Amino acid sequence: MDYNKIFAEIYTELEKIPDTGKIASYIPELGNVDPNKFGVHLTTTDNQDYSFGDANEKFSIQSIAKVLALILAYDLEGEKLWDRVGVEPSGTSFNSLVQLESDLGIPRNPFINAGALVISDVLVGHLKNPKTDFINFVRKVANDPTIDYSSRIADSEKSTGYRNAALANFMKSFNNIHNEIDVVLDFYFHMCSIEMTCKELSRTFLFMAKKGVNTHNNEAILSAAKSKRINSIMQLCGFYDEAGEFAFKVGLPGKSGVGGGIIAIYPGKYSIAVWSPKLNKKGNSSRGIKFLEMLTTEV
Amino acid sequence: MDYNKIFAEIYTELEKIPDTGKIASYIPELGNVDPNKFGVHLTTTDNQDYSFGDANEKFSIQSIAKVLALILAYDLEGEKLWDRVGVEPSGTSFNSLVQLESDLGIPRNPFINAGALVISDVLVGHLKNPKTDFINFVRKVANDPTIDYSSRIADSEKSTGYRNAALANFMKSFNNIHNEIDVVLDFYFHMCSIEMTCKELSRTFLFMAKKGVNTHNNEAILSAAKSKRINSIMQLCGFYDEAGEFAFKVGLPGKSGVGGGIIAIYPGKYSIAVWSPKLNKKGNSSRGIKFLEMLTTEV
Amino acid sequence: MDYNKIFAEIYTELEKIPDTGKIASYIPELGNVDPNKFGVHLTTTDNQDYSFGDANEKFSIQSIAKVLALILAYDLEGEKLWDRVGVEPSGTSFNSLVQLESDLGIPRNPFINAGALVISDVLVGHLKNPKTDFINFVRKVANDPTIDYSSRIADSEKSTGYRNAALANFMKSFNNIHNEIDVVLDFYFHMCSIEMTCKELSRTFLFMAKKGVNTHNNEAILSAAKSKRINSIMQLCGFYDEAGEFAFKVGLPGKSGVGGGIIAIYPGKYSIAVWSPKLNKKGNSSRGIKFLEMLTTEV
Amino acid sequence: MDYNKIFAEIYTELEKIPDTGKIASYIPELGNVDPNKFGVHLTTTDNQDYSFGDANEKFSIQSIAKVLALILAYDLEGEKLWDRVGVEPSGTSFNSLVQLESDLGIPRNPFINAGALVISDVLVGHLKNPKTDFINFVRKVANDPTIDYSSRIADSEKSTGYRNAALANFMKSFNNIHNEIDVVLDFYFHMCSIEMTCKELSRTFLFMAKKGVNTHNNEAILSAAKSKRINSIMQLCGFYDEAGEFAFKVGLPGKSGVGGGIIAIYPGKYSIAVWSPKLNKKGNSSRGIKFLEMLTTEV
Repeated sequence: MDYNKIFAEIYTELEKIPDTGKIASYIPELGNVDPNKFGVHLTTTDNQDYSFGDANEKFSIQSIAKVLALILAYDLEGEKLWDRVGVEPSGTSFNSLVQLESDLGIPRNPFINAGALVISDVLVGHLKNPKTDFINFVRKVANDPTIDYSSRIADSEKSTGYRNAALANFMKSFNNIHNEIDVVLDFYFHMCSIEMTCKELSRTFLFMAKKGVNTHNNEAILSAAKSKRINSIMQLCGFYDEAGEFAFKVGLPGKSGVGGGIIAIYPGKYSIAVWSPKLNKKGNSSRGIKFLEMLTTEV
Repeated sequence: MDYNKIFAEIYTELEKIPDTGKIASYIPELGNVDPNKFGVHLTTTDNQDYSFGDANEKFSIQSIAKVLALILAYDLEGEKLWDRVGVEPSGTSFNSLVQLESDLGIPRNPFINAGALVISDVLVGHLKNPKTDFINFVRKVANDPTIDYSSRIADSEKSTGYRNAALANFMKSFNNIHNEIDVVLDFYFHMCSIEMTCKELSRTFLFMAKKGVNTHNNEAILSAAKSKRINSIMQLCGFYDEAGEFAFKVGLPGKSGVGGGIIAIYPGKYSIAVWSPKLNKKGNSSRGIKFLEMLTTEV
Repeated sequence: MDYNKIFAEIYTELEKIPDTGKIASYIPELGNVDPNKFGVHLTTTDNQDYSFGDANEKFSIQSIAKVLALILAYDLEGEKLWDRVGVEPSGTSFNSLVQLESDLGIPRNPFINAGALVISDVLVGHLKNPKTDFINFVRKVANDPTIDYSSRIADSEKSTGYRNAALANFMKSFNNIHNEIDVVLDFYFHMCSIEMTCKELSRTFLFMAKKGVNTHNNEAILSAAKSKRINSIMQLCGFYDEAGEFAFKVGLPGKSGVGGGIIAIYPGKYSIAVWSPKLNKKGNSSRGIKFLEMLTTEV
Repeated sequence: MDYNKIFAEIYTELEKIPDTGKIASYIPELGNVDPNKFGVHLTTTDNQDYSFGDANEKFSIQSIAKVLALILAYDLEGEKLWDRVGVEPSGTSFNSLVQLESDLGIPRNPFINAGALVISDVLVGHLKNPKTDFINFVRKVANDPTIDYSSRIADSEKSTGYRNAALANFMKSFNNIHNEIDVVLDFYFHMCSIEMTCKELSRTFLFMAKKGVNTHNNEAILSAAKSKRINSIMQLCGFYDEAGEFAFKVGLPGKSGVGGGIIAIYPGKYSIAVWSPKLNKKGNSSRGIKFLEMLTTEV
């Protein structure tokens, strides 16, 4: 299929629709990005690449990294992981504390901030050098040793991360954070600071469209069964309280980040990364979601 | 694939696990069912049928009928329908009023009771003889003129349906119920009282595995695009606050009823109905879910 | 003390402050009242009367009647009453359903709508001719046989009372409404439709400043102990989620109604009724509260 | 009045009722107290003292100190204080985060933990040496230079204070904590660690029964108007979600601590301190409340 042509056609349509989204401003560094950036990269399971726009420009993947953290934590901890974090959609905002109180410190899923903090705690508990070991894992999956944290972004997050500190302290009061809070938060802020291009992102996640098998060396990053399960969690929880809307309109498992990036997986067919910094009211890339809706309606 | 053999094997395994579920007791009529009933029926998209256990015994399909009501309402009302009901998982119990208050009378999705009441209101508004017209629609889809309401069940629901009356009145206070409350409730209680066998249920829902096309006459009950969307809603909202767990373990769109029935759809492959009356704490058939988990892990 | 002079002085001050309140509009009949009406009547425990402004004009006392209903229900039911309704401030809006769900159908206090519906149910259960018997009780307390319901207001409430019907049905699902819902709602809507002047209101409630003793015949309407308790409930729950603000600024037990009336009690000294139809965001008479604040600061 | 005799009589009655309360266990130091301790001390506005039981034994006054912190903060900050903390009953548990989220970081009142943390932040902002200056203020009010923090208790609180750290971080994310979180928490934990005997406590709070005037030197600690307002806040918010129950049964402004202490004020008559370590489910001294209920019913 000529995705390049389709991308261009959709983008032409997209430009006719005013983008009412707003760029993330909760940390200064994210607010400095050009709001009109737009990039797409699709990689098919037989390794064909299709690019459009600013697909080779680095951006902050933010919460998309939570999927990689989850995969590593699931591998290290096994099914015990689900005693500490659920797999249910939250029905509330990504950084809400309300449910955490009635659920006694067990986050609904690994993608809301509370859940990703528990995942961070699991990794901090298992890894010898958590930040180094995690970025090495990401590099291995991405087959790209240059992928890295942005210390600018990590520092910026840390300086305003009171709500995440609240979540971590709250869960520690329920004994669901086991390590030092400062260490867990430092890991979490770094994890969310990883930068990739659309092309790197799409290629990194291709294994999720291939039942867990890494394309460049045919090694299994996770089993087919676990791969299916992670896709299910992405489908149900990947877009906070817009997950249903995304499933309804796009129908693919995926994950968004407040940097404006989205990764989506068509199992057996392709992975696709889209980047457009303006966010809708639910905190997801407004144009990114629209693009994927039009793409999946068309093909 | 020899599903008959697989069904028998799984059932043997299943019998070794104690069933801690409890039969629904909120209406007397449901409490009279033999809790040890167990039936399965699978219909492939090429019309092969596989049965096991009490697959030819009628039971109250309860909330499973909400999917058929949604399909008809979606067809009659079009995309305007989503102004009155969302497509997001609720994160709360099936009959909760909490979210309805903060969401100003718009139910999160069409499968929680509040949402199904809005769907009932839509149908009452569109249909000349709502109860007759709806059962005729079900009969047409099922290709079976004997499918019917159970007036026993409907009466039993009505006599204890104060919570549903609360939901309907509450939404009417937000102008999201347009017709007389008593008429809407009467329709709703009848809709939930339909009885089918596993075989009838599986065959009725086969079109959802075939992009909306009715097998027996090749007519489209709904478009491929709409069919995909309804499957998405089932996947995200079909099991109340256990939707994530079901997606995680089973991975198929589906819908449960408090009568102990479950319908699940494997798009392009098959529809399957399971019936086992004992419910887990979330109100879904405990053994039914376990059966589907084992089936989808195996094949 | 020359209250007449004080009233006039305060009113002069009050007129200098813009009244940003809005007249209640949820039922048409209340919307028809002249928003600039203002009346005050104070009755001392030694039967001195002080009037100001529109103190002899009838208005809809609305929720203020809930205090009289509570007093009669407390008398008829005794301490068992508190098994069905609490005495705690709700911390939420007057017609909220949220807490009712977590509190399993037990309203926080007798003055939020849910609580007053339970009180209505208690009265319907005890009284032979509930509406007649209740108005006769009010007339006896008021020492005025002309006090009556407004059928206009009652009808208007009924035609838009879906939220109260929701509350009643919801509580019946928890077995905390024992009688027919329609009968309870009809009683409730009538109870809220009583009309009085400021003078009648002040005189009716004087017994609450006199340890329960009715001034005109020295009969005890309720015991001193019970009188103290009802005053406590008024102090903590009389102004919905503005109770703390009222206690902080005014410091007297009291009760407001959406008709713009307020009754307040200075135990041992006086009862006072104020009427000004424009309501603040919490649903209490904006100018009425300000007047009482200035009065209690002054004297 | 012969309070000594009344105290003995009530205690005899009280001993006949089984005390189902449980000693606070959330910090080890509080769990070490003898659960059968019982002390009462009443001081009349004309400086008569009445003691009973363990009235001269030190205990941890815990949250009772929040009243003194509030008084000092109110004095230093003036009416601006109420922009940062409300005066409404919370309707929820003392350490709940739920309301804080919907109320955008403004605690409902100064006595729930969140509110007391804001008060601590205000004091840290105003005082040169916060901990020293505050204890000196308490000593001045108590007219007793030996009153002190317990570093054992403060350390014990700090080591398990994750929930309070969560609250402080959460409010800082809403800009309602202005100073360093660690400094604010350290102040808060010390403030809650003050130890007094019933006699000291009763005498310390006598000024609240005397319109703010300190008995031993006739200086005003706060104005009569402010004194009335603080009493109102105690009446509405002094016992968490049992405030209504306390007002209903006892009818006096008061404040409890999880150390089992209660201070109550009868304006114009007396202050009274009760100590009994076992707490009811709401976290208030079970026997202490019962004692005050019997006392205020009797006299």
